[in-house]
Amino acid sequence: MKTARFIAKGRLHEGQLKDGWLYDEAGEAHHPDAVQFLLPVEPQKVIGLALNYADHAAELELERPPEPALFWKPNTALLPHRGTVIYPKGARYMHYEVELAVVIGRNARKVKAKDAMDYVGGYTIANDIVVRDYVKNYFRPPIRGKGWDTFGPLGPYLVSADEVPDPHNLNMRAYVNGELRQEGNTRDMIFKIPEIIEYISRFMTLEQGDVILTGTPKGISHVHPGDVMRLEIDGLEALENPIEEERE
Amino acid sequence: MKTARFIAKGRLHEGQLKDGWLYDEAGEAHHPDAVQFLLPVEPQKVIGLALNYADHAAELELERPPEPALFWKPNTALLPHRGTVIYPKGARYMHYEVELAVVIGRNARKVKAKDAMDYVGGYTIANDIVVRDYVKNYFRPPIRGKGWDTFGPLGPYLVSADEVPDPHNLNMRAYVNGELRQEGNTRDMIFKIPEIIEYISRFMTLEQGDVILTGTPKGISHVHPGDVMRLEIDGLEALENPIEEERE
Repeated sequence: MKTARFIAKGRLHEGQLKDGWLYDEAGEAHHPDAVQFLLPVEPQKVIGLALNYADHAAELELERPPEPALFWKPNTALLPHRGTVIYPKGARYMHYEVELAVVIGRNARKVKAKDAMDYVGGYTIANDIVVRDYVKNYFRPPIRGKGWDTFGPLGPYLVSADEVPDPHNLNMRAYVNGELRQEGNTRDMIFKIPEIIEYISRFMTLEQGDVILTGTPKGISHVHPGDVMRLEIDGLEALENPIEEERE
Repeated sequence: MKTARFIAKGRLHEGQLKDGWLYDEAGEAHHPDAVQFLLPVEPQKVIGLALNYADHAAELELERPPEPALFWKPNTALLPHRGTVIYPKGARYMHYEVELAVVIGRNARKVKAKDAMDYVGGYTIANDIVVRDYVKNYFRPPIRGKGWDTFGPLGPYLVSADEVPDPHNLNMRAYVNGELRQEGNTRDMIFKIPEIIEYISRFMTLEQGDVILTGTPKGISHVHPGDVMRLEIDGLEALENPIEEERE
């Protein structure tokens, strides 16, 4: 099941995507291009993994981390499909990052890896935007590098776990203005989803709706105001966001 | 005004502290020792400052940071007054840290320092518990050092800003089992509250109820299962929490 929260004709809906149409609670069909998307989930917290693909770590000339290198994406950074990413005035190096986002389905505490997939509710696409200007230590990216308002596009759909039988074999692609810039497969994650959930839930309760950003493969590049980013992951549709320069 | 959220006789109340008694909505008086405290606020996010007191930075043999060194305390770590802090199995170095917690009163975005105090709703006491075992770089403490469930005692009261005319001149003390271990004054913050709010709100919207932990002075020391921590800040009463060892 692919669900979305959206506004159509001035009203808030939760709907399902079937054969290219969004069906609302009353069964009315809306074309996805004609609605305004909201976030597919409202997490209490969003936790990311830095350097969770070996090829991406190599591209930054960094070693792979010995354990999951966690960072925080504030809720205030989250942005729906088609929302506008704001390019901070004076920033020099903004990067997109296509990532498989894991949505927690029920509260997880001290969960073992072998049971961890039972706690996954579904998946969506995340764009883990970062301004590298503010990152001095890649293993612990500062909040100012990744935490700006609008730096967390997420969506468009929450795709239930049963529709993604193997989350560790999904192709991911990032396009900028239609040009393919980043390509990878979730099979190349260093720490796989069950290990990540075991690692985090060992010390921190993961709550229903919480989101884990599982890292990005090789292929980051600079983006600028006026660019449009389009991220695709097999089976999860596409997350598209334009970039505009910050105004005074 | 000092307000608390608490359970008394099985019912949830919001009440005010006057002359040592908690008055609930119906005007009934409860003794603070006879109620179960809840968190005084329910923040969307909690942001801390590492090394914001020069004497504490020196005690860790670290330089003072050139700009606010932010870290994240997850909501799931928050713990009310008298709640039990869990000592992780196998941990070696757990520290308390007494901190003035600033509670945001209304949404703040791109606020200048000169206007910042208008966005402060009130204050409370925080105990920024950390297990140093997991901290390898003090400027960017990893989430695993500070993010454990129960590592964020907060309370007992939300003290409104008008009751704290000068938040930069408050004595702070931490006692362990009645013994004074840490003492300082908020005047020694490196980055003061207005600068902190300007710095954060430049890139991240601070929402009503969000909490900023403003750092801790010199005097940290190890604590162990069985210890009771009591933190005091002038005008904010006292936050007390016992420590118990994690069970299997």
